[in-house]
Amino acid sequence: MPELPEKASAFIDWYLAVVEAADLTDKRYPVKGMNVWTPYGFLARRRLDRVMEEEIEATGSRPVEFPALIPETEFQKEREHIKGFDAQVYWVTRGGSTPLDVPLVLRPTSETAMYPIFKLWIRSHQDLPLNVYQIVNTFRYETKTTRPFIRVREIHFFEEHTCQRDEPTATERVQSNLGAFSKMAERFGLPYLAVRRPDWDKFPGAFYTVALDIPLGSARTLQIGSIHHYRENFSRPYGIQYEAPDGSAQYAHQTTFGLSERLLGAIVAVHGDEKGVAFPSDIAPYQVVVVPVPSAKGADPTPYAREAVADLQKAGLRVHMDERSDRPGAKYYYWETRGVPLRLDVGPREAAARQLSAVNRLGVRVSLPRDGLVESVRGALAEYDAGLREKAQAAFVAAFSRAERVEELTGSSTVRLIGWCGSETCGHAIEKAIDGALLGTLEGPPPIDLGAPPACVVCSAPSGPSWAAAGRPL
Amino acid sequence: MPELPEKASAFIDWYLAVVEAADLTDKRYPVKGMNVWTPYGFLARRRLDRVMEEEIEATGSRPVEFPALIPETEFQKEREHIKGFDAQVYWVTRGGSTPLDVPLVLRPTSETAMYPIFKLWIRSHQDLPLNVYQIVNTFRYETKTTRPFIRVREIHFFEEHTCQRDEPTATERVQSNLGAFSKMAERFGLPYLAVRRPDWDKFPGAFYTVALDIPLGSARTLQIGSIHHYRENFSRPYGIQYEAPDGSAQYAHQTTFGLSERLLGAIVAVHGDEKGVAFPSDIAPYQVVVVPVPSAKGADPTPYAREAVADLQKAGLRVHMDERSDRPGAKYYYWETRGVPLRLDVGPREAAARQLSAVNRLGVRVSLPRDGLVESVRGALAEYDAGLREKAQAAFVAAFSRAERVEELTGSSTVRLIGWCGSETCGHAIEKAIDGALLGTLEGPPPIDLGAPPACVVCSAPSGPSWAAAGRPL
Repeated sequence: MPELPEKASAFIDWYLAVVEAADLTDKRYPVKGMNVWTPYGFLARRRLDRVMEEEIEATGSRPVEFPALIPETEFQKEREHIKGFDAQVYWVTRGGSTPLDVPLVLRPTSETAMYPIFKLWIRSHQDLPLNVYQIVNTFRYETKTTRPFIRVREIHFFEEHTCQRDEPTATERVQSNLGAFSKMAERFGLPYLAVRRPDWDKFPGAFYTVALDIPLGSARTLQIGSIHHYRENFSRPYGIQYEAPDGSAQYAHQTTFGLSERLLGAIVAVHGDEKGVAFPSDIAPYQVVVVPVPSAKGADPTPYAREAVADLQKAGLRVHMDERSDRPGAKYYYWETRGVPLRLDVGPREAAARQLSAVNRLGVRVSLPRDGLVESVRGALAEYDAGLREKAQAAFVAAFSRAERVEELTGSSTVRLIGWCGSETCGHAIEKAIDGALLGTLEGPPPIDLGAPPACVVCSAPSGPSWAAAGRPL
Repeated sequence: MPELPEKASAFIDWYLAVVEAADLTDKRYPVKGMNVWTPYGFLARRRLDRVMEEEIEATGSRPVEFPALIPETEFQKEREHIKGFDAQVYWVTRGGSTPLDVPLVLRPTSETAMYPIFKLWIRSHQDLPLNVYQIVNTFRYETKTTRPFIRVREIHFFEEHTCQRDEPTATERVQSNLGAFSKMAERFGLPYLAVRRPDWDKFPGAFYTVALDIPLGSARTLQIGSIHHYRENFSRPYGIQYEAPDGSAQYAHQTTFGLSERLLGAIVAVHGDEKGVAFPSDIAPYQVVVVPVPSAKGADPTPYAREAVADLQKAGLRVHMDERSDRPGAKYYYWETRGVPLRLDVGPREAAARQLSAVNRLGVRVSLPRDGLVESVRGALAEYDAGLREKAQAAFVAAFSRAERVEELTGSSTVRLIGWCGSETCGHAIEKAIDGALLGTLEGPPPIDLGAPPACVVCSAPSGPSWAAAGRPL
């Protein structure tokens, strides 16, 4: 069994090797950056999708699905937005052997697909808020090096689009999305940074963008999602107006909230270790794997193991029984690499004592009695999740440090928390020093206790009320 | 409120009006035949997907997802298959402003996307069977008149693809698929016909095709899915070989099983009536709608109703509380049109008596005590489903009749069960007479008790062991 590269010193190599070893995707599809979701990877993705569905629907958002193809005529309506995507979209130009009258864009994101229809759905203030979301695939003609889940050409994507009455209610929706994401992140076990991007780095067409960044060590960050306030930037070109209570016609204020399959990449990157992936139990394709360990002396424990599996499955747990003929050690290694939270080993001794030997993915061992197994397995999973979260939180805190002067940013091995006056000139100086990006100003308190932000690291002018962060986005 | 056209005499008009009235889709998207899944339609579709997932995974199939774009070079490998799709595919020819070196096809179905990878996944007989499925959207440049769910250009699609050792095991998989579909159909409340298509009507590249047809009255049928045995027709061009136990290299025998969003169209068409849609409770976006009916005299029943809703939701039922300010009659009409299985009305009298007035979508009324509500609602839904199924079964049986001579097919108002010698000449004579299609020979006994099939309706030669069916596919 091949050794994995070291996570700390060779992060990208480690990441690629872990994804490969855990069999989450197959990169051999004959279009670069369009990968196959293997059964195991798909099951993890399905869990991510279900968590997103549950948490966003709890905030009053309803699922929809808009077509994948967008007519060029609609796509061209919002200029700034389009400039942001023009070089990156796939064009459908023929149907059969016939050139299409109007070429179609494969959705890179769905503003331009949805908003002509929102115009039809919205008449009066009573139709607001309109909060809808979809989970679909989007497409980008990516020219940079592709990486599984992190930079691909067909992207599994969650996108909420909303219409609100005015700027303050749209701001409330942004806050509601941040609340929903904090619940999702809790279930994914992912500590994150919510940062308002500098103007030069916001989403094309946005009034402002709050990005969700995951620090990955060595000052690296991964943007796994973002929330945008569009103000009237789209509702004007797309004519999304409503009749206000006073009878006047008003443009809706819009917001969007996007999350991508990078979430799976982040889960691999944050929780993975020298043995492979480690899934939080809410996301794990299998929460429990049961391995019968027959031995020459003693009765075959398989029937006993099967009965336990049936009990756990009946209780709604995702359990897999590994009855392959491989030796137990090979199975242990196999499921560790794949990040299964809890393994239950069952030999003749366990069967005789009506017990099961449990070992979780963090290496904690405990013996569970057969009676009340469902409850004790649930308890063991909760304990595992708490351990995983604690480990992730410790790494999160260690990923940041404060910097007083712009020179400290050069070669930094942590994401730097700094004062920033808000000017673009100082921003670019910060980006040059860290050889990365000014991620923006934090929404909420910094991840480490630092008090009020100091003066700008570049010009020493007073900074705003929030800390800024600088790092090196993947 | 507009009257719906009559189902019996103006089926297509009725169908279109019902789909519109129930707000299942929005056809105003600016690409013809690419429709928007509205929240209500999407929720129904999600239920269909979950049922398909559950039933196919119970037969050992695992979910995957392959890319939506297929390189022309892979697409061209199986000639007969390609001929079947050549005029119908969308071509992606540009990325940004760059012409692609190899044009990409938007998947019309995924044989040509999956099989180059199956070749890599399969080495030995121990890798078989390979049973995987995906639920994705497929694309067809459809030139016929489009109809919601029935004929669209972006099609929501379930497709299982399998590799088996040999022809008999592949035949077993076809039978397993038929078994899985019978369980799905039970949950959809859809009686159906499984028919082996005549050779001239089988899927391009198939050895044989078993189609799943739903009779819709007046000899109309709707193919909502199909199962294909490919023999080695794809494994040879795609090189899908395995090492047999004796060391020899063998080509896999392949099967596929496809179901489309036509299932939703069939549910609308079969269960719908003069009031609108009627959903089986397993598929209904909301299984129960609760309508509080305040009155001038008596306390506001809303808190009582909310408590009941919370109980039902906690038990896992899909319940919607309609607190809009519209008058109760308008709400009743609204939810009837949308096919909600069970409505619970709660006025001050019900609240005082700790009861709820239930009325199901078939018009059956009953009073349910507040105590034990979850169980009695489950019972009421089961009773409703049985009633719906019985009604559908009666219509199914009435949709068929036997014919002895080819002349009886002309102008037939039922799907005709006939003897057929198996020859293409007689088959075409049958199709001409009924002005439709020879659907094929039945898999299993006919839907009405008829004994052994008689001689061919055209040439009087002996027919095979199975009845044949002829109708007019939509």
